[in-house]
Amino acid sequence: MSKGPIKVLLWGLGAMGSGMGRILLEKEGVEMVAAVAQTPAKAGKDLGEVLGVERKTGVVVTNDVERALDSKPDIVLLNTASFVKEVFPQIKLVLERGADVITIAEEMAYPWAAEPELSDEIDRLAKAAGKTVLGTGINPGFILDTLVIALTGICADVRHIHAKRVNNLAPFGPTVMRTQGVGTTPEGFVEGLKKGEIVGHVGFPQSIHLIAKAVGWKIDRIVEEREPIITNVPRKTQYIEVAPGDVAGCRHTARAYVGDREVIFLEHPQQICPEAEGVETGDYITIDGNPPVNLAIKPEVPGGIGTMAIAVNMIPDVLAARPGLLTMADLPVPRGIVGSFIEAMRG
Amino acid sequence: MSKGPIKVLLWGLGAMGSGMGRILLEKEGVEMVAAVAQTPAKAGKDLGEVLGVERKTGVVVTNDVERALDSKPDIVLLNTASFVKEVFPQIKLVLERGADVITIAEEMAYPWAAEPELSDEIDRLAKAAGKTVLGTGINPGFILDTLVIALTGICADVRHIHAKRVNNLAPFGPTVMRTQGVGTTPEGFVEGLKKGEIVGHVGFPQSIHLIAKAVGWKIDRIVEEREPIITNVPRKTQYIEVAPGDVAGCRHTARAYVGDREVIFLEHPQQICPEAEGVETGDYITIDGNPPVNLAIKPEVPGGIGTMAIAVNMIPDVLAARPGLLTMADLPVPRGIVGSFIEAMRG
Repeated sequence: MSKGPIKVLLWGLGAMGSGMGRILLEKEGVEMVAAVAQTPAKAGKDLGEVLGVERKTGVVVTNDVERALDSKPDIVLLNTASFVKEVFPQIKLVLERGADVITIAEEMAYPWAAEPELSDEIDRLAKAAGKTVLGTGINPGFILDTLVIALTGICADVRHIHAKRVNNLAPFGPTVMRTQGVGTTPEGFVEGLKKGEIVGHVGFPQSIHLIAKAVGWKIDRIVEEREPIITNVPRKTQYIEVAPGDVAGCRHTARAYVGDREVIFLEHPQQICPEAEGVETGDYITIDGNPPVNLAIKPEVPGGIGTMAIAVNMIPDVLAARPGLLTMADLPVPRGIVGSFIEAMRG
Repeated sequence: MSKGPIKVLLWGLGAMGSGMGRILLEKEGVEMVAAVAQTPAKAGKDLGEVLGVERKTGVVVTNDVERALDSKPDIVLLNTASFVKEVFPQIKLVLERGADVITIAEEMAYPWAAEPELSDEIDRLAKAAGKTVLGTGINPGFILDTLVIALTGICADVRHIHAKRVNNLAPFGPTVMRTQGVGTTPEGFVEGLKKGEIVGHVGFPQSIHLIAKAVGWKIDRIVEEREPIITNVPRKTQYIEVAPGDVAGCRHTARAYVGDREVIFLEHPQQICPEAEGVETGDYITIDGNPPVNLAIKPEVPGGIGTMAIAVNMIPDVLAARPGLLTMADLPVPRGIVGSFIEAMRG
């Protein structure tokens, strides 16, 4: 790895990628050496302008990844898509060019769940290149898996895990409204599910397998359910209004079984304005074990900033990690780096 | 390392060591090959008898460490003392005999805080032997440090950390009553502090430095305070009765500063029967950061079983770790192992 500051290439400058860029501008011992936008409109501009900050960064945003990689980054923050299939060629390219990868693609939190062959191939490519690939994020990546795993660490026995993340979609835009079915009728919700337009949360199988592998459960079956959260009162955001009787969000759940025994139950009801019906947002983890554990984080850890932050904070540990395709359960406990990223390199 | 089950030597068969032994009896892929008691009375007995379980283990408890180490354990669980000075010669011996070490000695959670030279010597000896040494426990080791660190991982900025552990000492015996000043008068409490008979919590500097090193704060000053928790109502346990106006426990706090700025505030009020005055036990972590985090675990994670469990659960990760003196912040997130300890070996 280069001496001096850690060199980062930012790939994907949407809400998440741009947020990471703004965080990185405030950090010591790390610098952005290149930035790749998916949209032509952003190309040619100074990164500072695209990030919406005053200062110029001297980094010109490009759509040309190959050129951007000529900057010889130590690591690439990949924020382009949600699914392993989509990011695989991008990860392959980065590994071939000799950089580590951190991606917030949801399926990459435990890629073997959705794409075992592609995951093994990424692992093989990473080891061949002597580089490391990590998928992370707030969820999947932390709240419903890494944090759960950490809590089981103080248990002599773990019989069942129940984790629930109750959030508020009010800040989000049209895409999220559509994928969660917000504003549809109950019938429209069922239709949307059938057509695959309403997807709910992407990440339950990933979180479940991450937990199960860490504690040693062999999961035989995962059952996911998506049902409409029908509002009894009017709910309104800057993007949408929902009338009583219509859908304010998607209650998505997943149950994992060892044989016929349920061992993990994850819930992630996502809706706009839950407070309108007295629903308190928060992250909740209950472990039926010895000892039992009953945790609550109120309000919930915000998804946006949390995802941007953990992706940035994992940089030194990924650079210091062994080569291969790793998960959050393979790496040291995450930490919020307020000091120099170079000094934060472990070992 | 040996094929087959992981071979463990249990050193120290007090409440903690015995509890670890009972946990290990229920686990797969790990076996106790020797057990060393500090007290002559336990020597010569089958370990099962000393652990208070029905079955015979075939392991005969001894006071002779050298002989016990002839069983060639992969790892030693060291539960003999609280301070680095006390466990140093024991750790040195184990390393010379070629085994890894996990100890619950409170100061070993971050040994450099109390004994920088001895800690560097342990690190040197461990690397020379190609072995790993870890200090862990519920507190220090998890609640007021490792869990705090993990939560900062989702923060883009961390300005201040406040963590508080409110527990109930009612289950504990005379030694704990004495070291926490339970049952003394307010004047007696002050005297006990002066004489060093009342110590409060052992672990604040360790937790603070563990957190500070992880996030990158250079701590200039730590201020600890111990004050009596005076009860307004009668409080009674099977070991002690405390009258109104006398001391029910010790409110121990520590504040850590970077320059003149307080960055960490840890509180650990330990008392008998807090419910007698409506005090709810729990573990509480509040991070003033971006985003802010507000966590509560109610009731608190019990200290005894939690410490036994995390020491046992860390076995595979310590065996798989690089050589040297490590901390919980250097290792993967802890996890409660319900499957085989051999399969739980990472990497």
